Amino acid sequence: MEKIPYKIYLEEKEMPKAWYNVRADMKNKPAPLLNPATLQPMTAEELSGVFCEELVRQELDDSTAYIPIPDEIRDFYKMYRPSPLVRAYCLEKKLDTPARIYYKFEGNNTSGSHKLNSAIAQAYYAKKQGLRGVTTETGAGQWGTALSMACSYFDLDCRVYMVKVSYEQKPFRREVMRTYGASVTPSPSMETEVGKRILAAHPGTTGSLGCAISEAVEAASVREGYRYVLGSVLNQVLLHQSVIGLETKAALDKYDIRPDMIIGCAGGGSNLGGLISPFVGEKLRGEADYRLIAVEPASCPTLTRGKYAYDFCDTGMVCPLAKMYTLGSGFIPSSSHAGGLRYHGMNSTLSQLYADGVMEAVSVEQTSVFEAAQQFARIEGILPAPESSHAIRVAIDEALRCKETGEEKTIVFGLTGTGYFDMVAYAKYNDGEMQDFIPSDADIAAALSKLPEVE
Amino acid sequence: MEKIPYKIYLEEKEMPKAWYNVRADMKNKPAPLLNPATLQPMTAEELSGVFCEELVRQELDDSTAYIPIPDEIRDFYKMYRPSPLVRAYCLEKKLDTPARIYYKFEGNNTSGSHKLNSAIAQAYYAKKQGLRGVTTETGAGQWGTALSMACSYFDLDCRVYMVKVSYEQKPFRREVMRTYGASVTPSPSMETEVGKRILAAHPGTTGSLGCAISEAVEAASVREGYRYVLGSVLNQVLLHQSVIGLETKAALDKYDIRPDMIIGCAGGGSNLGGLISPFVGEKLRGEADYRLIAVEPASCPTLTRGKYAYDFCDTGMVCPLAKMYTLGSGFIPSSSHAGGLRYHGMNSTLSQLYADGVMEAVSVEQTSVFEAAQQFARIEGILPAPESSHAIRVAIDEALRCKETGEEKTIVFGLTGTGYFDMVAYAKYNDGEMQDFIPSDADIAAALSKLPEVE
Repeated sequence: MEKIPYKIYLEEKEMPKAWYNVRADMKNKPAPLLNPATLQPMTAEELSGVFCEELVRQELDDSTAYIPIPDEIRDFYKMYRPSPLVRAYCLEKKLDTPARIYYKFEGNNTSGSHKLNSAIAQAYYAKKQGLRGVTTETGAGQWGTALSMACSYFDLDCRVYMVKVSYEQKPFRREVMRTYGASVTPSPSMETEVGKRILAAHPGTTGSLGCAISEAVEAASVREGYRYVLGSVLNQVLLHQSVIGLETKAALDKYDIRPDMIIGCAGGGSNLGGLISPFVGEKLRGEADYRLIAVEPASCPTLTRGKYAYDFCDTGMVCPLAKMYTLGSGFIPSSSHAGGLRYHGMNSTLSQLYADGVMEAVSVEQTSVFEAAQQFARIEGILPAPESSHAIRVAIDEALRCKETGEEKTIVFGLTGTGYFDMVAYAKYNDGEMQDFIPSDADIAAALSKLPEVE
Repeated sequence: MEKIPYKIYLEEKEMPKAWYNVRADMKNKPAPLLNPATLQPMTAEELSGVFCEELVRQELDDSTAYIPIPDEIRDFYKMYRPSPLVRAYCLEKKLDTPARIYYKFEGNNTSGSHKLNSAIAQAYYAKKQGLRGVTTETGAGQWGTALSMACSYFDLDCRVYMVKVSYEQKPFRREVMRTYGASVTPSPSMETEVGKRILAAHPGTTGSLGCAISEAVEAASVREGYRYVLGSVLNQVLLHQSVIGLETKAALDKYDIRPDMIIGCAGGGSNLGGLISPFVGEKLRGEADYRLIAVEPASCPTLTRGKYAYDFCDTGMVCPLAKMYTLGSGFIPSSSHAGGLRYHGMNSTLSQLYADGVMEAVSVEQTSVFEAAQQFARIEGILPAPESSHAIRVAIDEALRCKETGEEKTIVFGLTGTGYFDMVAYAKYNDGEMQDFIPSDADIAAALSKLPEVE
């Protein structure tokens, strides 16, 4: 066997030709979305008012295992995919661990993250349906950037509601979106009814993801030829992101590598779900066993301290209800810098897998995350996004555990993106001014007490 | 012949094992560096006071064609190399041109540019010599970032003098360097004698590359176990950067592609020289013919409007003199945003090749450069650095010329880096507030009148 290279690249012809829909292999299917008015399962027709038709089909399909990737999307994928699966030789050496560490690096594109995988699919289906444009929200800005790029490629109008605190703290993110032709509005805004309502109730609020979602949904509904698109949480997003896991598995198979554990950071679940989907499938079909580990911030511990229940996906309560692990749609995460992980809920498929014990979860604190980020940057040369660094933290912890036990485990983790636009947070860490935020039991109980009542 | 993929990746085992020293194939060798005090050629001994010993050897060696790349450097290269040679299918389609466009993308590493190729080599030789640290200057910040990464990898102290205007405009660049453990000082500073002198003469100056070089050289000379390193201009840097051209050529050869022209942006010449070196070699040996095109900003037109003469490499006149195309070391480029191209001189090898007609040069204006940058970003998905976008501008112009003539030319250009830290400039362009700056003949004549007198 030849030495495993630093970077395993698939060839273009080895790229996946279909996405993998893990729901098809689940005995316990994720619970359906509910209409917030009737509390009945949302129909395709109801969903089509908000989402593109083909995306609604994908959202509701829990039985088709493989869904072909259209050629137009594959052509776009070829501009930045296949992404490398990297053997972290330098990190292994520095940690002096017998573990073998691999990471799937999704940051090598201008959006700086994996978000582009679903953005291009959603823009494609919107264009195919003859729409004029799409609306969305963005927090840290990675999804907004990805969608701007995708819309510019297909010549679609793109309107982004950006959480106000990020809009102000990350002017450069905003400019990247504008460079790709998107319009960017700080949320909450006076442009929407829900925005006005939230501003009236909470004057001076710096916004939240849940609130920006409400505004983007409303903005799509009042414009002819517009639909709303979402970069995480939904099952269609997990489907598109399965390209990450499929490539990872193909690269591992190419060198006969069998991982012991697969680690991903978890906000809404898009990257984690995409990365682990094919491995979950094998596990569910009894073909292999893996530890599958979700890593979330201690400041927003959805899986580890939340409740598995129906809840609103947004603050304005205009979206469907999803059954998921949640901290309550009214939960306001303290100002952690891992913006992309500050979401009160979790994708319903991953929630079901966690409830069934197929996947495990762990939460980590911010300062230890940045410690891992800095260590990784200095050794592996990539400046990781704070979100991604949650997975790095746990990968390093597991590798150090192997050092103690002498076990030669194979660790795979998802490096979802780069941190070029997160230097305010890095500066805080460099200056020793970073703090940890852990919500109290009382805060979580208070937010959970307001869950909607669904039998 | 199978279809050429979007991205041609070499395998790790196909990576160059030696750098190519184009001077070995030149009949007219570049002129030697001169001692500023005696105006005699600098000896190895004299240079060793400033530079690492092995780097001095490489600087003075104009006869060895191939210099082996040490394994330690190749291991580091493997973390981010081979870099892809990308077929710009989408750009070709959008321009509706019969031309075939390829670009060698060097931005897929945290320094955001090709600078890492030489930084790791220079850090390695410094470490091997047992030094404690190195000093350097940085303008736009790409070189400083690259050197910080390289020094952190080899556990060397790294002191960066950053042109003050960039230090203030690019706080995030500064933080990336700090994350990699470097100390960053705005230049001119009160830390050095030359800095104090410049500040006394020009109170409130926001600095220049030439001035930061003077400070970094002085800082190295007063510290035990320190040497000065430079990211461009020198022939050792061209040597290290030849890895770009060697990979490009190997990738083209793999698919039997013969380029008609090779285009690169030119500041000090490091990327351009590295990219074209192997092609220059073929041209000089009469094995092939190519158009080799240097693109410089109209605001700092070293090749197109400068003089081929001996000049100081720095403002403080502490560095050796080099024979090169120059606008005069006192030339102050107006505040163009392509920070990395704002240097009054040009590498001596490239200067000689230009004087001999082996290479041609063209200058382009800033607004047209950003127009090309935005177009490229929207079509090819990569947000290019302003410097790199100079090459994009000319590549697009040449492709459009092919459209008129119907010629199926093959165009290769160097995409040296990404623009994530240049969003202030993009914002200006997005807001329609960008201007062009072209120095007057009188300004250039004034600066050239102060060239040192060397017979």
